[in-house]
Amino acid sequence: MATKKMILDLDTGVDDALAIAYALAAPDVDLIGIVSSYGNCLIEQAGANSLKLLELLGATDVPVYLGLGHSSTTDHFDVMQVSKDIHGNNGIGEVELPPAKRALEAAAGVDFIIEAAHKYAENLIFVPTGPMTNLDAALAKDPEIANLIGNVTFMGGALTVEGNVTPFAEANINQDPQAADRVLRSALQITMVGLDVTLRTLLTKQETQTWRNLGTATGKAYADITDFYIDAYYNLGIDKTGCALHDPLAVGVALDPSFVKTIDLNMKVTSDDNNYGRTIGDNARLNEPTTNVKVAVDVDKDRYLGVFMDYLTKLFK
Amino acid sequence: MATKKMILDLDTGVDDALAIAYALAAPDVDLIGIVSSYGNCLIEQAGANSLKLLELLGATDVPVYLGLGHSSTTDHFDVMQVSKDIHGNNGIGEVELPPAKRALEAAAGVDFIIEAAHKYAENLIFVPTGPMTNLDAALAKDPEIANLIGNVTFMGGALTVEGNVTPFAEANINQDPQAADRVLRSALQITMVGLDVTLRTLLTKQETQTWRNLGTATGKAYADITDFYIDAYYNLGIDKTGCALHDPLAVGVALDPSFVKTIDLNMKVTSDDNNYGRTIGDNARLNEPTTNVKVAVDVDKDRYLGVFMDYLTKLFK
Repeated sequence: MATKKMILDLDTGVDDALAIAYALAAPDVDLIGIVSSYGNCLIEQAGANSLKLLELLGATDVPVYLGLGHSSTTDHFDVMQVSKDIHGNNGIGEVELPPAKRALEAAAGVDFIIEAAHKYAENLIFVPTGPMTNLDAALAKDPEIANLIGNVTFMGGALTVEGNVTPFAEANINQDPQAADRVLRSALQITMVGLDVTLRTLLTKQETQTWRNLGTATGKAYADITDFYIDAYYNLGIDKTGCALHDPLAVGVALDPSFVKTIDLNMKVTSDDNNYGRTIGDNARLNEPTTNVKVAVDVDKDRYLGVFMDYLTKLFK
Repeated sequence: MATKKMILDLDTGVDDALAIAYALAAPDVDLIGIVSSYGNCLIEQAGANSLKLLELLGATDVPVYLGLGHSSTTDHFDVMQVSKDIHGNNGIGEVELPPAKRALEAAAGVDFIIEAAHKYAENLIFVPTGPMTNLDAALAKDPEIANLIGNVTFMGGALTVEGNVTPFAEANINQDPQAADRVLRSALQITMVGLDVTLRTLLTKQETQTWRNLGTATGKAYADITDFYIDAYYNLGIDKTGCALHDPLAVGVALDPSFVKTIDLNMKVTSDDNNYGRTIGDNARLNEPTTNVKVAVDVDKDRYLGVFMDYLTKLFK
C-alpha cells in the first residue's frame, strides 16, 4: 500500500501547531505540504507561523503555500478579539520563535491542492482545520477533485452540541459558512471532527509539563505555546480543566477513524441571520440512499490522548 | 420476567392513533392507561379521541385520564392552524367515530403516572408523544419517580436535523420547552425518538390500502384517518412520498430499542427567543462520566415497517 500523503490547511494558531507536530510524528503518513488560511490569525501570520514551526521541528522539507486570505463572500478579514485572546496576537501564544530561513512557496495554495489531488488521488488526505475557503475554491476551479481526494477530515462544526461563536456556529464554519455548505454538499467523502468530540478531548498542564521536562528547545516552545492556550481556556471560562485538542484530533481521526464513533448524514450549513454557520442534517436529503459525511459524535479520548502524547513527546525529544 | 406495562401520554392526533394500535397489538406489553395531553388538538378532544379509538379496537379495559391542558408557562392553549391542517379539526383526520360509551377516569392523569411509577417501577414504560407537560408535573409532585420509571421513550425533538416548527424546534418540544428541559435534566433514563428518525420512517397509501382491503370497520377507519394525514403531508409539501410514523415509532423503540442506532448525550432544551425549543447537547455536562439520554439518530425503517404492518394489520382483522 502506498504511503498516505497529507495536506494540512491551517490558520496556524496554537492547536494548528499541535496538528503539525502530530502529522510529522505519525509514522504512517507523509506531510507533503501546508496550505495557509485565515481565522485564528491573518493568513500571512499563519504562513509565517507554519514555516517557523516546521523549522523548529526540523521539517524544512515541507512546503508552505498561501491560500485565500478572506471568506468567499467578503474581500477582507479581521481577526476576532476572542481569537487573539485564545491564540495570542501572533497566533502561537505570544511565543517568539526565530524567523524562518525559508520562504513561502510561490505557487498558490489552491493550485497545490488541485495538483496533489490528481497526483495522489485516493492516497491523499486533506485536513482543513480552519475555514473551508481554500477547499471550496479548489472545487470551484477543478470540480473533478471531488471524486479524487481519498479522505477529507475537517475540524469544524457542531452537530449535537452548541457552537463556540454563537449557540449555532463553530468558529471555523462561522468564517465562511457558504464555502462550508458547498463543500459538504459536494461529492467529497468527508469526516467532520467538530466540537461534539473536540470539547471532550482536553489537554492539561500535566501533559505540557512532560514536554517541558524533556529539556529541549522544542519541548519548551510547545509547552509555552500550549500553556498560553490552556490559560486562555481557564481565564475565558471556556473550560477550567484543560484546552480542547481541536485540530490535532482531526489529524488523528484522519489517520485512525477508530478514535471516534460516527454517524452518517447528508449535511448543509445554514447562513440565515438566525442560524448563521449552523452545521445540520439536510432534511431534504434525509432519505437519499447514500450519504457523504461521517460526523464524529463520540471519542475514545483516553486512547487518543495516549497516542497524541506518545507521538509528540518522541518528536520533541 | 414480569410483563412490561406501558402508559401512553397522547395528544391524540393521527399518529397517536397509530401509536395506540401498535401498543395494543404488541404481544410483549400491557397498555395500562392513556394520559391525555394537548397539541395536535385540545386536551378534551385528545381524551375523547383516545376513548373512541380504544372502543373501535375493542380495548375498553384501558383507562383514559386527563392530564394538563396547557404548557407549564401559560394558562391557555390554542391549536395551531398547521396542526389542524395535518390532523384535521377533530384530530383524527375528520373521520367521525361513534361516541364512546365510556367516560374519562375521574383521577388526574399526573397522579396516575405517579401511582403507576411506584407500582410497576422498572417494569413501567412511559411514552409521551406530545408535550412533556404531564411528566414534568409528575416529577415536580413526586421527584422520586425519576428513579423508579424503568423506561421513558418520547417522540419529540430534533438533534441532527432541522425542526418542523422552526429550524430549531420540533412541534412537541415547542409546546413546552421549559418542561422538556426539566425532564431531560432529571435523573430519568430517557430515549429520544425525534425527527432524526421519524422523518425517515414513512408510510404510504400502499400500506393503508392493505388495511382497507381487510373489509373491516377498523381497517377502514384507520385507513381513512391515515390517508387524511398522508394527503396533508403531500399537500403541505412536508413529504411527497408518505407520512412520518412519529408516535408509533416511539412505541416500537420503547419495546425494541434495536430498531434504532442511538448516541449517548446529556441534553437540554433552550428557550431563548432565537433558539426556542431546541433540543441540544448540554455543553456544560459534556464531560460528565454518565449520560441519561439516548438519542435515536438512525433507524432500520424496513424492519420497523414490517413489524408495524404485521401488528396493525392483524389487529384490524
